[in-house]
Amino acid sequence: MTTAYTHHHDIRPLDPALERIVAAADAAAPELADQEPRRRGAALAAVADALEAHAEELVQIAQEETGLTTGRLQGELKRTAVQLRLFADVIVDGSYLDVRIDRADGEFVLGARPDLRRTKLPVGPVVNFAASNFPFAFSVAGGDSAAALAAGCPVIVKAHPGHPRLSLRTGELVTAALEASGMPAGVFSVIEGQEAGTAVLQDPRIRAGAFTGSVRVGRLLADIAASRPQPIPFFGELGSTNPVFVTQQAVQTRADDLVSGFVTSVAGSAGQLCTKPGFVFLPEGHGLEERIVQAVEDSNASLGEQRLLNPAIASGYNARRETTLGARGVRTVVAGESRTDGDDQGWTTPTIVAVSLEELRAQREELLEETFGPFSVLVEVPRGSDLAALVYEFFTGSLTVTLQTGDAEVSDELRSLVAAASDVAGRLLYGGWPTGVAVTPAQQHGGPWPATTNDSSTSVGTAAISRFLRPVAYQSVPDALLPPMVRDANPWDVPQAIDEAGGSKTWGSRASA
Amino acid sequence: MTTAYTHHHDIRPLDPALERIVAAADAAAPELADQEPRRRGAALAAVADALEAHAEELVQIAQEETGLTTGRLQGELKRTAVQLRLFADVIVDGSYLDVRIDRADGEFVLGARPDLRRTKLPVGPVVNFAASNFPFAFSVAGGDSAAALAAGCPVIVKAHPGHPRLSLRTGELVTAALEASGMPAGVFSVIEGQEAGTAVLQDPRIRAGAFTGSVRVGRLLADIAASRPQPIPFFGELGSTNPVFVTQQAVQTRADDLVSGFVTSVAGSAGQLCTKPGFVFLPEGHGLEERIVQAVEDSNASLGEQRLLNPAIASGYNARRETTLGARGVRTVVAGESRTDGDDQGWTTPTIVAVSLEELRAQREELLEETFGPFSVLVEVPRGSDLAALVYEFFTGSLTVTLQTGDAEVSDELRSLVAAASDVAGRLLYGGWPTGVAVTPAQQHGGPWPATTNDSSTSVGTAAISRFLRPVAYQSVPDALLPPMVRDANPWDVPQAIDEAGGSKTWGSRASA
Repeated sequence: MTTAYTHHHDIRPLDPALERIVAAADAAAPELADQEPRRRGAALAAVADALEAHAEELVQIAQEETGLTTGRLQGELKRTAVQLRLFADVIVDGSYLDVRIDRADGEFVLGARPDLRRTKLPVGPVVNFAASNFPFAFSVAGGDSAAALAAGCPVIVKAHPGHPRLSLRTGELVTAALEASGMPAGVFSVIEGQEAGTAVLQDPRIRAGAFTGSVRVGRLLADIAASRPQPIPFFGELGSTNPVFVTQQAVQTRADDLVSGFVTSVAGSAGQLCTKPGFVFLPEGHGLEERIVQAVEDSNASLGEQRLLNPAIASGYNARRETTLGARGVRTVVAGESRTDGDDQGWTTPTIVAVSLEELRAQREELLEETFGPFSVLVEVPRGSDLAALVYEFFTGSLTVTLQTGDAEVSDELRSLVAAASDVAGRLLYGGWPTGVAVTPAQQHGGPWPATTNDSSTSVGTAAISRFLRPVAYQSVPDALLPPMVRDANPWDVPQAIDEAGGSKTWGSRASA
Repeated sequence: MTTAYTHHHDIRPLDPALERIVAAADAAAPELADQEPRRRGAALAAVADALEAHAEELVQIAQEETGLTTGRLQGELKRTAVQLRLFADVIVDGSYLDVRIDRADGEFVLGARPDLRRTKLPVGPVVNFAASNFPFAFSVAGGDSAAALAAGCPVIVKAHPGHPRLSLRTGELVTAALEASGMPAGVFSVIEGQEAGTAVLQDPRIRAGAFTGSVRVGRLLADIAASRPQPIPFFGELGSTNPVFVTQQAVQTRADDLVSGFVTSVAGSAGQLCTKPGFVFLPEGHGLEERIVQAVEDSNASLGEQRLLNPAIASGYNARRETTLGARGVRTVVAGESRTDGDDQGWTTPTIVAVSLEELRAQREELLEETFGPFSVLVEVPRGSDLAALVYEFFTGSLTVTLQTGDAEVSDELRSLVAAASDVAGRLLYGGWPTGVAVTPAQQHGGPWPATTNDSSTSVGTAAISRFLRPVAYQSVPDALLPPMVRDANPWDVPQAIDEAGGSKTWGSRASA
């Protein structure tokens, strides 16, 4: 397999430096796709090792560029390394390939059936638009890059301008580690600038896009991907308001726990997390405000004023914050700080406001947007309100919905709420808070629009690999021409689901009324 | 789970009859989603039984409306019933849910991990735009409807105007069988007209679209789905040219077999199949033309003049046929008939033309489109040409690519050709012909644009169900509030991939250089 994924007739000229990068990715695709799982896995593990070996240097650059704390950045770098190692295991395991083999069957119920073997193949070169708020875990060597490389796709990362030095340095380390592990040249590059990113997304050699960022930019890029002469899949993780629904029992039995968990979740990383709880629906007369004020004071005493990631985020935060504070009926619970320094950097402490359900309803266009930063809205819900109906009324898509209940509280109302929440969210929490997304096999970080542009997969956890694969079936192809995972000898030792001859005669017999 | 999938604030008014249908589908969604697998499977099997019980009546209407032969239609109806029964088994088996359970893990490598349970849930109501050329298998009760119902999604079928009576009658039978099996009212409806179809596709209660038809209409609908305020996945199966590459050895050792297989594949169903071989790349000087002329004569003697499906297809076929026949350097091998009767119906026998590689290259815009009907182009390839390079030069996406070789022929050239073909096609055949798509677990009916609008799945075979599902994770949710498939007791007896506590410590250790 040595021919590149090129469709020569269809290529518009790119700037020469960009052209070299895209051409190299295209040329590297077949060789990367053909790597034995253990070798591609070892290359991912080598990237993890390289990041950890340079942790001190990387965290220092990241700290300077993003203002995030050293502790947070160290943890994030570790998470990024763990993520790469987890994907190494996913490749070796091979179940992500969903290999299916149908034996030739002369007595097939619809006439003779040929030998058919289905697997998934890497889609080809991927462009990944990095995020600002996770300079490691959702950036150059982050989840999207790890998943695409694991799938066997060359990756071109469009760096986020919020941490340019870190992006280039990370890129150098990743590229060097991959090449030292025997991966072909060109499998990994970092580019800069919106124009370059858009040009690459439109290039016919690019076969999928990934993005983490705002609804506005995500929509723009998704529309570009969809309107190409040859449309490609585009996986954008965009905005999320992460509503929390609190029952009366939770207020009565877990007030302290509830309030401290809430404030910790809003204040951490200066609220700049996609899963920050943006709206908390509380029973009217909950009486928690004094506790919230106290908890924010305690949090401020420990965290101090926190810098926002960059001037653009600071100005966006201020604008959204002002809009909400100025809306009719919005009452300030914790005033919080939000000031801009001489370098246009924003400095904040949490702001918490409250609004009645009625006013939220009346001003939904103004109020229901995400405010990216340490800000949350308490919504006061009249007794007897149908919480499930509120989910449908206010949210079409969210990364998470959280239920705060009494200890092991169960009711028909909660059952309806769970059903409604699972219609609009990728992840549903019972207790706990949505920030802090575990990198594990069962994770789901996604959700209907506007949480993502494409809710068929996840951008965290092992299932994220599925975004960069496409299925192919081989009909009656001899072993010598088949890729290893669908051969009878199964040299990669992957799970193969085999449909033996004769089975079709009883299809349908497993179901009964 | 009794609340409908509605987002009330976002709904534009539909025509009252259409509004009732969409509202009913929306209202039925939760109850359908919650059906026990055996019951939903039994309902699909009941639909299969109903179709077979009315086979005579249905085939007769279909014959009148489409002109397809009774034999072909009987076979297609059986295939449609088998497909429904196969999906019944898929539901009961449950592996399509990809259930993953991560146990809570206090020693998780990134800090304590909560209990996480991931499954797939039905996306909600689906609109399915039916095809003209398979009045059973890709129409009202066809693969897309079967897959969506199996997934647990209510279905609204936009009937193809080529067989209106059949569509309504099939819809009655399906609806009655589903309701008699205890499925909620509103889970299945048939609508008519392009305007109604477009309005439904734009309705916010609709969560996915499926389509089988032309590139032009497919692109139009895909663009509508992508540009909705809340974009939804749209799975269109569009045009395909299904190139065939013939080696010198095949010509030398299997000439008769080759020619008879080719002519049968082009002539069957008057060539109105998405997988009809449209371009056959043959070594220059192949000397097969006389055999081809003879084989078409034999085929005509047995099949006679065949009617095209409807006047629109007849006029499209004539236009494309004339364009190709009139192109520079195109030589007629078999003239074939194509006449239009007083009812504007088209009547045909196969037309086969030949062109040099050079002329195909020079006139690619004109020549490389699909001609839907009994028409195929022989391309004469100079000795020593790189066949893999031709794949990349001429094709970006195709449902199939076929290799015609000597018996068990294997070479480096073929290896490259297989690699190139698997980059652009959903299914790769070695010998055999692409028409006749087996309905089985390992089938793949898809491919990069323009074969489909979305190459992440298939529209034939059991994997087709994945198009109508979205993943959701439950974090620390008590058993009493979890859906059955992720409960510890596993009442639906589905496969659950369990990640036990403690495993994260060795992540990455399975990969080694």
